[in-house]
Amino acid sequence: MTTPGHLMAAEIAEQPTVLAHILSSYDAHLSPVLARLRAHDTRSVLLVARGTSDHAAIYAKYLIETRLGLPVGLVSTSTYTAYDAQAHLDGVVWIAVSQSGGSPDLVESTEKARAAGALTIALTNADGSPLEAAAELRLPMLAGVERSVAATKTYTASLQWLWLLVEGWAGGSLDAAAGVPDWVAGALDRPEVSEVASRYRFVERLVTTSRGFAYPTARESALKLMETCYLSAHAFSGADLLHGPLAMIDEDRPVVVICPDGAGGRALQPVLEQLDARGADVCLVAPPEVTATSAARIPLPSGMIEQLAPIAQVVPLQQLALQLALSRHYDPDRPRGLQKVTKTT
Amino acid sequence: MTTPGHLMAAEIAEQPTVLAHILSSYDAHLSPVLARLRAHDTRSVLLVARGTSDHAAIYAKYLIETRLGLPVGLVSTSTYTAYDAQAHLDGVVWIAVSQSGGSPDLVESTEKARAAGALTIALTNADGSPLEAAAELRLPMLAGVERSVAATKTYTASLQWLWLLVEGWAGGSLDAAAGVPDWVAGALDRPEVSEVASRYRFVERLVTTSRGFAYPTARESALKLMETCYLSAHAFSGADLLHGPLAMIDEDRPVVVICPDGAGGRALQPVLEQLDARGADVCLVAPPEVTATSAARIPLPSGMIEQLAPIAQVVPLQQLALQLALSRHYDPDRPRGLQKVTKTT
Repeated sequence: MTTPGHLMAAEIAEQPTVLAHILSSYDAHLSPVLARLRAHDTRSVLLVARGTSDHAAIYAKYLIETRLGLPVGLVSTSTYTAYDAQAHLDGVVWIAVSQSGGSPDLVESTEKARAAGALTIALTNADGSPLEAAAELRLPMLAGVERSVAATKTYTASLQWLWLLVEGWAGGSLDAAAGVPDWVAGALDRPEVSEVASRYRFVERLVTTSRGFAYPTARESALKLMETCYLSAHAFSGADLLHGPLAMIDEDRPVVVICPDGAGGRALQPVLEQLDARGADVCLVAPPEVTATSAARIPLPSGMIEQLAPIAQVVPLQQLALQLALSRHYDPDRPRGLQKVTKTT
Repeated sequence: MTTPGHLMAAEIAEQPTVLAHILSSYDAHLSPVLARLRAHDTRSVLLVARGTSDHAAIYAKYLIETRLGLPVGLVSTSTYTAYDAQAHLDGVVWIAVSQSGGSPDLVESTEKARAAGALTIALTNADGSPLEAAAELRLPMLAGVERSVAATKTYTASLQWLWLLVEGWAGGSLDAAAGVPDWVAGALDRPEVSEVASRYRFVERLVTTSRGFAYPTARESALKLMETCYLSAHAFSGADLLHGPLAMIDEDRPVVVICPDGAGGRALQPVLEQLDARGADVCLVAPPEVTATSAARIPLPSGMIEQLAPIAQVVPLQQLALQLALSRHYDPDRPRGLQKVTKTT
C-alpha cells in the first residue's frame, strides 16, 4: 500500500528541477525547429491537444496572437476523425501537444494535416510515440517519466517549451525565462494553500477565472480539482463570466481568481468588482503587486514577467487540488475512472 | 407584475417563425457577402463572439473546417484589447457574432482586425450597432427584438445564418435548410421536457456533453441552465470529458447527452459506454434513429441533417432551462446580476 498522492506530490515538487533542465538543454532540440520555421511562409497556426495539454495549447494561442500576430486556432479533432474533412493547410504550422503522444485522434489528425500541407510539430514527453512519428518535427518535453494520472510537471514543461518556441520564432531573447525555476520554487509549499484547502473542505461547486495569459491557469486548476477532488470546478475567462455565468455566483460558491501583475490583471478589475457586488467568496492568487480585497489569498512570487508567470501560477493550485483530495480521503494518484493514457478517437 | 419567464417562453415559441422568415429573406443580404468572399483569397477564418454567440461561433468553426477545409480559430479579444497585439491579417476572413453588436471588446477587436487587413463581417440583431459600423460587411439576424436576457431566438437565428453563409461560400445548395422551421416546431413543447424538469428539480450540478456539430448545443444548454437556474452546468466535448472530468461523474450528477444521428453521434458511443460504466444518470436528447439506453430521454424530430440539427436540438433544452427555473421560483426573464447587453473590454 503506497501513500495516497505521493506520485502527484513528488512530481509537483520536481518542477523547478525539470524546468531548469529544459532551460539548460533546449537549444539542440529547438534550433532545428526554429530554422525550419524561419524558412517557412507561415500564414496561420493550428494547435491540437486534449485535457491538460489543451490548456498548454490555449497558452500558446495567446503567445502566438500577441508575439507573432498570426491567426491561430485550436483544432476540433472530430473534424478529421469523425467528419473526414478535406483540409487545405498550405502555409499552416500545426503544433500537437500531448504528454503520451498516444491518443489516436491526435495522431490521425496530425497525419492528415501533414498530408494536407501543414508543417507539423509534435511536443510530447514520450520518445518514439505514434504522434512523433506522425509529425515532421519534434520537441521532447524532457520532463522525465510522469506516473501520476493528474499531470503536473508535463503541464509546466509544456508551457516552458511553448514559450521558448514562440519567443524564439519571434526572434526574442530566451534569457527572460532564466528566472522561471526560482519563481516556481517560490510558489511551492505556501502555507496559505493549506488554509484554503481547509476553507474549501466541504465545497461542492467552485469557479476559477482569469484573463489573457493566466486564463489557461484557471482552466488547468479547475481540471485538477475535477480529476482529483471530483468537484464541479468550472473555469471561465473573466469576460465570459460576465456574459451569463455570473448569475450562478453566490455566497455559497467560491471563486478562485488568478490575477497576474500586468495587462491581464488590469482587465480583471471589472470582474473582481462584479464578484464583490454579488457577494462572492473570492480567493485571490496573485503576486504582492496586485492589490484587491478578497476573503482568502494565495501569494505568488514577486516580479514575474506576465507572459511567463503561468508556469509558476499553477503550482499552488496543483497543491491545493492535492491537499483537498487528501483531506477528502481520495487518492489523487488513482482518480476513479481515469487511466494515465486516454485514448479518444 | 408580469408572469415570470413570459418573455423567454414567447421568444422560444417564436423560433419556427423567425427561422422561416430568415429562409425567405436571406438572399438580398447574403448575396453581396458571398460575392465579396468569392473574390477574396481566403487563407484562414477567425471568429469573435461572447456568451451565447460564442456557441454559434463554435458551430461555425465546425462548418468551416468540414465544408471549406480552411484553418479557423476563435479569437481571444484580450489579445487586441488588453495586450494590443499587432496582427497581420491579410487573407483572413473575420466574422463577429453578437446579438446587440454593442460589447466594446468585439467592436475594438473588429476595428483592429479590419485595419490589419482582414475582411470583416458582422452578424448582429441590432440595426446601426457599433459592431456593424466597425465591420466592412454585415448580415442582419432578422430575429426581431429580443427582450429576454437569456438569448434563445437570436441563437438559433445565428446558427441558421452561419450555416447559410458557410454553405453558400462552399457553393452548396441552400435548399437543404428548408426543413429547419418544421424541425424546430417539432422539437417544441415535448412533454418529456416537463418530466426531466421534475427529475432535475433538486439537482445542483449537471454535465452536458456532445461531439462535433452538436457540441455547441451542449455548451449553449449549459449556459442557459447557469443563467436561469444558477445550476453548476458544465459542458464538455465527449472526448474532453474522457480526458479527466469523467472522474467527477457519479450517480448524483446527471449527464445530458445530445446525440445526433450521424458521425458525431457515432463518435459519442464510447462516451455513452464510459458514462454507463460509471453509473451516470443519463438523459439522452436524440432523434428516434439513435438507440441507446438511458435513464431519461427527450426525443428530437426524425430525419434531420446532422449539420443543421443543432438549430432544433437546443430548443427542448431552452425549454428545460425555462421550466426548471420556474419550478425553483426564479424568473428567467430577470436573472440575478445580468443585463441584456453585457459590455466587456
